[in-house]
Amino acid sequence: MKLIYTSASVFAPATVANVGCGFDVLGMAIDKPGDQVDIQVNSTHKEIRITQITGDDGRLPLDSTKNTASVALAHLLESIKWKGVGFDLQIHKQMPLGSGLGSSAASSVGALAAFNALLETPLSPSQLLLSAMEGERAACGSAHADNVAAGLFGGFVLIRDHDPVDVIPISTPENLYCTVVHPDLELNTADSRSVLKREIDLATAVKQWANVGGLIAGLLQKDLGLIRRSMVDHIIEPRRAALIPGFVEVKKAAMAADALGASISGAGPSIFALSDDAKKAKIIGERMQESFNSFQIASEVFVSRINQNGPIILDRA
Amino acid sequence: MKLIYTSASVFAPATVANVGCGFDVLGMAIDKPGDQVDIQVNSTHKEIRITQITGDDGRLPLDSTKNTASVALAHLLESIKWKGVGFDLQIHKQMPLGSGLGSSAASSVGALAAFNALLETPLSPSQLLLSAMEGERAACGSAHADNVAAGLFGGFVLIRDHDPVDVIPISTPENLYCTVVHPDLELNTADSRSVLKREIDLATAVKQWANVGGLIAGLLQKDLGLIRRSMVDHIIEPRRAALIPGFVEVKKAAMAADALGASISGAGPSIFALSDDAKKAKIIGERMQESFNSFQIASEVFVSRINQNGPIILDRA
Repeated sequence: MKLIYTSASVFAPATVANVGCGFDVLGMAIDKPGDQVDIQVNSTHKEIRITQITGDDGRLPLDSTKNTASVALAHLLESIKWKGVGFDLQIHKQMPLGSGLGSSAASSVGALAAFNALLETPLSPSQLLLSAMEGERAACGSAHADNVAAGLFGGFVLIRDHDPVDVIPISTPENLYCTVVHPDLELNTADSRSVLKREIDLATAVKQWANVGGLIAGLLQKDLGLIRRSMVDHIIEPRRAALIPGFVEVKKAAMAADALGASISGAGPSIFALSDDAKKAKIIGERMQESFNSFQIASEVFVSRINQNGPIILDRA
Repeated sequence: MKLIYTSASVFAPATVANVGCGFDVLGMAIDKPGDQVDIQVNSTHKEIRITQITGDDGRLPLDSTKNTASVALAHLLESIKWKGVGFDLQIHKQMPLGSGLGSSAASSVGALAAFNALLETPLSPSQLLLSAMEGERAACGSAHADNVAAGLFGGFVLIRDHDPVDVIPISTPENLYCTVVHPDLELNTADSRSVLKREIDLATAVKQWANVGGLIAGLLQKDLGLIRRSMVDHIIEPRRAALIPGFVEVKKAAMAADALGASISGAGPSIFALSDDAKKAKIIGERMQESFNSFQIASEVFVSRINQNGPIILDRA
């Protein structure tokens, strides 16, 4: 494990988990927003230090035992039995916290990718995955893989299992666009989980797994009609919709503008919509924002393709 | 709608519904066993008559208002506003009844395909589907599509929805083989349904839809390892296994012989196993049969590829 650079700067993408029908098993990366993470070798200590966080209004911990980014990197260094230099990290949050866009995942994926960018022989996404999941555990108490796997691998992923973790990259149609609208509301993931029923009807579950199968088939076969028909969540969205003021109307606005489907991004409150055209994706965002406006809720719109790259190296030396 | 033949004979394949994780949404056709259905135009009456049934030990109704084959054909004739001649049908059961191999579906698909074989311009599988589902309603009280869709379309299908019915053909690896072992036991579909819980854990449902997604991706991407990992049913098999004496051991025998997966075919009692090689598929069948033997249960083994054709015209004039 040899370092050939002493500093690097990477961009790690935001991610949409669940993607409608795929609660806890589907995730996709989007081109924007995302986090920038910078790393420098620091030979004067052997630790991981977080020397700066911007864009978080002072809300994230600089304590490296608590920050998701440093926890993820510490886990990786331990797993590869790293005995060398220490590292300084700077996290530049370029996306909202608690938005349902995988903010913590972007930071831990960013830290791992930044370290990876220093290496002569970079590690694969699979080799970084468990460490990124440890970052999630630090952030929300549970080592979920849906956001971090999408962030590390890029594209659309199915998390078939968590034990052991089994990530299946799913190719997507080239003209698939994602519009994300982030309302100026903050939801706690724990709240979003608490509204879910622990038991569900078998008959409803059957409908859900039919749609998961349909969505996977639609993506792989580039069948936009099938994607559209499968983008229905019978289980989670009906429970969580009430937590997001205006959800029903905002979703309606997206569908009226010819979205293939729309639902809650992760645990919310962001709402995403899929569409088959860049111009349409932009209009969908405008309509969704207008709809939030009618509830006196300000919002931010992000339009992008499905990110195919995972983290990107912005600079290194 | 013009008839250009006066008689036809078709073969309609047996089908495996559920296919492990895909309760009520997945089905596949196999090359054998199946039913033969013969049809003749009969201008002396305007009805559908069942003039002969063989291979059923006298258990199936000759009454055309009750037999699944004639009910399906009657539904089709009504839906196309047929005003012409009547038809005589003969059903040659070449597969066990109540076996979990879609016996009723094979007969109704066979009758529809036999009529279709007489036409100048045959109807598509989609156009026959609702009528075949009516045959299922006559047979078991519920217009399920999993067996009839697999039988009509051939291959592997996802039934994404029943209302309206939405059948998604899923291509499969060429070297995918199916071994079916039918023990000399008879289960009633109603009994098999009654052991199922109406409510299931959300956490277990999540595992199930992850596997449905994985199986669809594995089939479409021809990834045998992924098919293997996804062939796990957390919900139905654990409840129904107890209805089939020896199930646990027979499945173990299949897996020990390198099956990709094994589970209950439809509502049982037949057990199917998937594998990636014809020779292996045969050996798997032998091992499964030996295992049933050790419980003093006689069984019949069928080894075939995934049927890619649906019904086949054997003869017409």
